[in-house]
Amino acid sequence: MNVSERISNVFASPIRKLSPYAAAAKAAGKKVYHLNIGQPDIQTPPAFLEAIRAFDDSVIAYGDSRGDARLLNAIQKYYHDWGMDFDINEITITAGGSEALLIAMMGVCDPGDEILVFEPFYANYLSFANVLGVNMKAVTTKAEKGYELPGEAAVEACITPRTKAILITNPGNPTGRVLTSDEMELVARVVKRHDLALIVDEVYREFVYGFPFRSFGVMPGLEDNLIVVDSLSKRYSACGARIGALLSHNADFNEQIMKYCQARLCCPELEQIGAAALYSTPRQYLADVNDEYRRRRDTLEKALSKLPGVTFSSPQGAFYTMIKMPVDSAEKFAIWMLEQFDSHGETVMFAPGDGFYLTPGLGTDEARLAYVLNCADLERAIAIIGEGLKAYPGAKIIA
Amino acid sequence: MNVSERISNVFASPIRKLSPYAAAAKAAGKKVYHLNIGQPDIQTPPAFLEAIRAFDDSVIAYGDSRGDARLLNAIQKYYHDWGMDFDINEITITAGGSEALLIAMMGVCDPGDEILVFEPFYANYLSFANVLGVNMKAVTTKAEKGYELPGEAAVEACITPRTKAILITNPGNPTGRVLTSDEMELVARVVKRHDLALIVDEVYREFVYGFPFRSFGVMPGLEDNLIVVDSLSKRYSACGARIGALLSHNADFNEQIMKYCQARLCCPELEQIGAAALYSTPRQYLADVNDEYRRRRDTLEKALSKLPGVTFSSPQGAFYTMIKMPVDSAEKFAIWMLEQFDSHGETVMFAPGDGFYLTPGLGTDEARLAYVLNCADLERAIAIIGEGLKAYPGAKIIA
Repeated sequence: MNVSERISNVFASPIRKLSPYAAAAKAAGKKVYHLNIGQPDIQTPPAFLEAIRAFDDSVIAYGDSRGDARLLNAIQKYYHDWGMDFDINEITITAGGSEALLIAMMGVCDPGDEILVFEPFYANYLSFANVLGVNMKAVTTKAEKGYELPGEAAVEACITPRTKAILITNPGNPTGRVLTSDEMELVARVVKRHDLALIVDEVYREFVYGFPFRSFGVMPGLEDNLIVVDSLSKRYSACGARIGALLSHNADFNEQIMKYCQARLCCPELEQIGAAALYSTPRQYLADVNDEYRRRRDTLEKALSKLPGVTFSSPQGAFYTMIKMPVDSAEKFAIWMLEQFDSHGETVMFAPGDGFYLTPGLGTDEARLAYVLNCADLERAIAIIGEGLKAYPGAKIIA
Repeated sequence: MNVSERISNVFASPIRKLSPYAAAAKAAGKKVYHLNIGQPDIQTPPAFLEAIRAFDDSVIAYGDSRGDARLLNAIQKYYHDWGMDFDINEITITAGGSEALLIAMMGVCDPGDEILVFEPFYANYLSFANVLGVNMKAVTTKAEKGYELPGEAAVEACITPRTKAILITNPGNPTGRVLTSDEMELVARVVKRHDLALIVDEVYREFVYGFPFRSFGVMPGLEDNLIVVDSLSKRYSACGARIGALLSHNADFNEQIMKYCQARLCCPELEQIGAAALYSTPRQYLADVNDEYRRRRDTLEKALSKLPGVTFSSPQGAFYTMIKMPVDSAEKFAIWMLEQFDSHGETVMFAPGDGFYLTPGLGTDEARLAYVLNCADLERAIAIIGEGLKAYPGAKIIA
């Protein structure tokens, strides 16, 4: 039997595809600092496990396809506090932000349709598009311009009759960029002009440093077009819970996707119980976590600025940054760091940058770093990258 | 914005689409016996919650995309005990059997490709095919012939150049039929002749009454073609855990689907911990549950045989049966039972049969019953259907 072209075409995740090299490095006794994946080391609020431990039903039964009422209510309240009011039947619980993205894409795109993204973008979007037969088109944003959106004409130039949606991550992954109000207005104008879906991935909403975050969800006039992708993975450091959500005011979208949700039956029961409890965490938790990431961001920037030939754009949100390194290939360098290099038995894993771009040739000397480690580990990890750059045979000589 | 054609075309699940009527009936104070959904009332083995309660990591972190090692090892051993040996990298943990089906289909079919099924079939297959742009083609099996497979020529006649897979449920859902060895050989010949994928959904493997079950996984010569869909939902009465698995010896398939699995990151951590513990349940549990369902099957048959004009084929496995009723429309009757009828404040929900057929016009007077209630409730539920049939305005007169 042959596998499908669609699955052959799925791009290997730049975030995870080097995991076998990391496993081998660990098996060889090396300590590996993981800057490749957005897996925070922050403690999950204890309410998660406490609520689950209190669960005592004798049958672990199917739940509602939309989601458990307690969790739906908790998410409704969370959004209300952000100034966004959704009815319960405008919220759908999903198996992580991943399933939310898959369902959003299938809900608005037929095979051959197009989704516009701004590159560099979260690489896994492409995999979901691949399996659905949807084509991604990228508008390039540039490191040297701080990843600001290009003008409206450049965005319009990428719209075709097959374009069905704009998919945008804000705060940005992998760039850490937060959209300005002007940029949000630009996106909203294009969306409304062509009556597109606007799929916004705002899972890093709570991670904006030094200024308030504005959601697309509070912009007037987008009610018919907006689909919000959410996840509690990062918000409450509960990545392994795999609980996300889709929110939209578009009644037709909500009704149609529910048929698919019913076919996949429901989301896991215990994780939903824990997730509902997480939303009762005092808001101070999120403020404290925000402070911690801001410190890490500052630590990262200070450490990176000491590395000769490495450039980066200051991240304003999320917990990622893209860096440009003086190497022949960031992927080769990443593999070399895991296979060939160590500093006192320690090395670093990061995500090669080209996987975050659609345009061939872009990002080959870039890497995404996730600043999800504590400040001391972060400093050490960046110093190891610096040592690696000095020793790497494929490094370019810095004048 | 417009929703996609693919999502518009998704068939509403016959198992869940009448849920709003059931909710209204309950809100009006009626007791509803649920024969519509395969939600067993059997206790989940306590090991599930015990293992989860013992979990004490401070961070609920992403797990491995293939699945947690403990669960993979447990499933490997379970299959070994069934005479099927899979390497760990030939097993992939999924979000229920549902995700296993979705991934199996995307792994072997491109948009426009075809999958052959035998109708009546598990209705949700169609939803997954719909969203992937895959076309289902059905070979009809007939109630009056006990849902036996038609001859090889009839199966061959449905194969086209776009056919990429045969998808078969054994034991059958919704029919409760278990394939004979001759039928399995027939299917294997067709699969090998055209080098198709053979996707076998054997989630009811433990529920065969009075004779041993033979898996496609022990048939020689299918190594390259076989994809086994599994789930612990029914096996351990843990439907809400949403833990399934995909198993295949085809190395290319396994490697390609892992890219998608990495994009969706991982399955829920706590449910995997509970699932691994379930596999340590003494085998006597499964034997006891088998005995219980056999009693229910016998109770169901006895109760159904008392209903004038109702015909059915004796189920040999799983916990479903299709019945034929003397009504104008099983769906109208189902809605009427929930909206208009009660017997001493009680009524019954079942799944209309046409949703389990692809061929228009088939199954309109049929229903799928899930015998997942205890014998007393089951007897009462069938008696209520009998009372309903006497009172239903759309009932046909039985001579």
